[in-house]
Amino acid sequence: MPVSAREWQLAARPHGEPTPEDFRLVEVERPDPADGEVVVRMLVMSVDPYMRGRMRAAKSYAAPWEVGETMQGGAVGRVVASRSADVPEGALVLTDAGWRNVAVLDAQHVRVLPELPGIPPSYHLGVLGMPGLTAWAGLFQVAAFRAGEDVFVSGAAGAVGSLVGQFARLRGAASVVGSAGSPEKVTWLTDELGFTAAFDYHAGPVAQQLAAAAPDGIDVYFDNVGGEHLEAAIGALRVHGRAAICGSISAYNAVSPPPGPRNMSLLVASRLTLRGFLVGDHTDLRPEFLETVSAWLASGELVVRETVREGLDNAVPAFLDLLRGGNTGKMIVTLSDD
Amino acid sequence: MPVSAREWQLAARPHGEPTPEDFRLVEVERPDPADGEVVVRMLVMSVDPYMRGRMRAAKSYAAPWEVGETMQGGAVGRVVASRSADVPEGALVLTDAGWRNVAVLDAQHVRVLPELPGIPPSYHLGVLGMPGLTAWAGLFQVAAFRAGEDVFVSGAAGAVGSLVGQFARLRGAASVVGSAGSPEKVTWLTDELGFTAAFDYHAGPVAQQLAAAAPDGIDVYFDNVGGEHLEAAIGALRVHGRAAICGSISAYNAVSPPPGPRNMSLLVASRLTLRGFLVGDHTDLRPEFLETVSAWLASGELVVRETVREGLDNAVPAFLDLLRGGNTGKMIVTLSDD
Repeated sequence: MPVSAREWQLAARPHGEPTPEDFRLVEVERPDPADGEVVVRMLVMSVDPYMRGRMRAAKSYAAPWEVGETMQGGAVGRVVASRSADVPEGALVLTDAGWRNVAVLDAQHVRVLPELPGIPPSYHLGVLGMPGLTAWAGLFQVAAFRAGEDVFVSGAAGAVGSLVGQFARLRGAASVVGSAGSPEKVTWLTDELGFTAAFDYHAGPVAQQLAAAAPDGIDVYFDNVGGEHLEAAIGALRVHGRAAICGSISAYNAVSPPPGPRNMSLLVASRLTLRGFLVGDHTDLRPEFLETVSAWLASGELVVRETVREGLDNAVPAFLDLLRGGNTGKMIVTLSDD
Repeated sequence: MPVSAREWQLAARPHGEPTPEDFRLVEVERPDPADGEVVVRMLVMSVDPYMRGRMRAAKSYAAPWEVGETMQGGAVGRVVASRSADVPEGALVLTDAGWRNVAVLDAQHVRVLPELPGIPPSYHLGVLGMPGLTAWAGLFQVAAFRAGEDVFVSGAAGAVGSLVGQFARLRGAASVVGSAGSPEKVTWLTDELGFTAAFDYHAGPVAQQLAAAAPDGIDVYFDNVGGEHLEAAIGALRVHGRAAICGSISAYNAVSPPPGPRNMSLLVASRLTLRGFLVGDHTDLRPEFLETVSAWLASGELVVRETVREGLDNAVPAFLDLLRGGNTGKMIVTLSDD
């Protein structure tokens, strides 16, 4: 009996800001699972900024998504049929099956998740998943953060940024400054997440606001935004400062190359290191990451917030809203009724 | 009996390209050496691109030179009078006494040099001195070059660049590409220094010429030039590529901040590292550097060329010409008749 699935496909390559017309929802029949395959009914799927990059035709770290393909991405679901001894029916699994309500998958491409009290399935797409490991690897490995240092993170109210700031605080940062896109987010950072200071980047030049929030400079910058933020951070980094370059959401919709930082000469004068990274190069850190962050969750030291949209029909609006900063913490789409 | 000295002072902070009027030659009486001091008559002095940066008022890695001060910089001379047991009369010494024919110096601030057959004193300002250690530290430590990698160096016919390319070749680079500012320099790089390929950056866009010279990309970039060169190199660096940022001579005379690289998003996609450095942080490498490079000089494997100007009166024209690329290899000024 074939499996009937609803799936979002890329209908056209977006030019600039994506529009709903760049996506289409289709109903397809997937064949019954073969030997070694499982059928997974999705509970929750992820929308992430990196997906905008994958819609470009340009060469990048991974082959671009093709028009007509089903949108990829992280999703957590439950196995409803199994022809694999490794992944039994009923198991909670992490997949990269993307934007669909049900998928037939090679059992080797899914990861069976522990079912932990107090840990909703969506956390495996956020704090315990790719964004969490991204924050961990970028802060501790790429930027080589050490206790006692001063940290600045942009996009600080996002899925990754909100964890970077808290990880730094929990590991002994002297101060943590964040930038975000609204007064509400700024208040959340300082009042609930324990940031030392935060500012709304719409409220004035980033360099000025950063200088006010961190008058003695910073040691580490975690970049989610690029552009003006990166230039301001280069200007604020002290001697031997490091920047972990995770993303540049300010440029994801750009149709022409954005200007680069005009103060690159400070790389020499201040002996700075700018290092780009992808979480996929740092999966060796997952055990220590999961152990530590699970403990922080259990003790209540780590604050987690999600922005939740319901239903597969809302996946595209959720993604478009994410690119406009409509999320606080991780943006997820629940599929339990699909 | 006081010591009569001729010294170049900074007469004004240059705006844009320095002019002869920004400097003045004065004759001063320096007091007799006190206890622990030596009098050094200079044989050769250095002009270096970094000096342009020190003439700015802007905050940088070192306090800016003040108007009215004697120009600083490396110089090699002979001790003609000594009141220090550590530095005897007749010793060949390296100093940072700068642009003058004779100096009275604290003996703790001079380094006694070995007198080696076949090694002229000027080599201690170039291949065996600060530029040589800069090339060594930047290539092997900062950029972490490894045998089998492909290297690109800008300003490749300069004091530092000409050594970077040769060090890479002698340590097993798969290929070494250089850029320089004239057809003659390009020919020198390929025909005498053993570069795999070289190009004249005036002859067309750097990115295009680099792509032609290194069609499969590069692993390491050693940046002496900045600007368009850095952007082109970022575009050519392969996954996990590294750039050692040593200087940006293209911007030294700029009166407004030059545009930055427009392709910073490749730092993430290709997981690149850009790292600025100063040789002063890497003096721990000097013993291994001196040992290896001295051996390469003795065996004739390393080609050294100097651009020599004669006389203290010509120090300013030499410096101005250096900033316009008038040197091949290290630019020095001999003072033996001053």
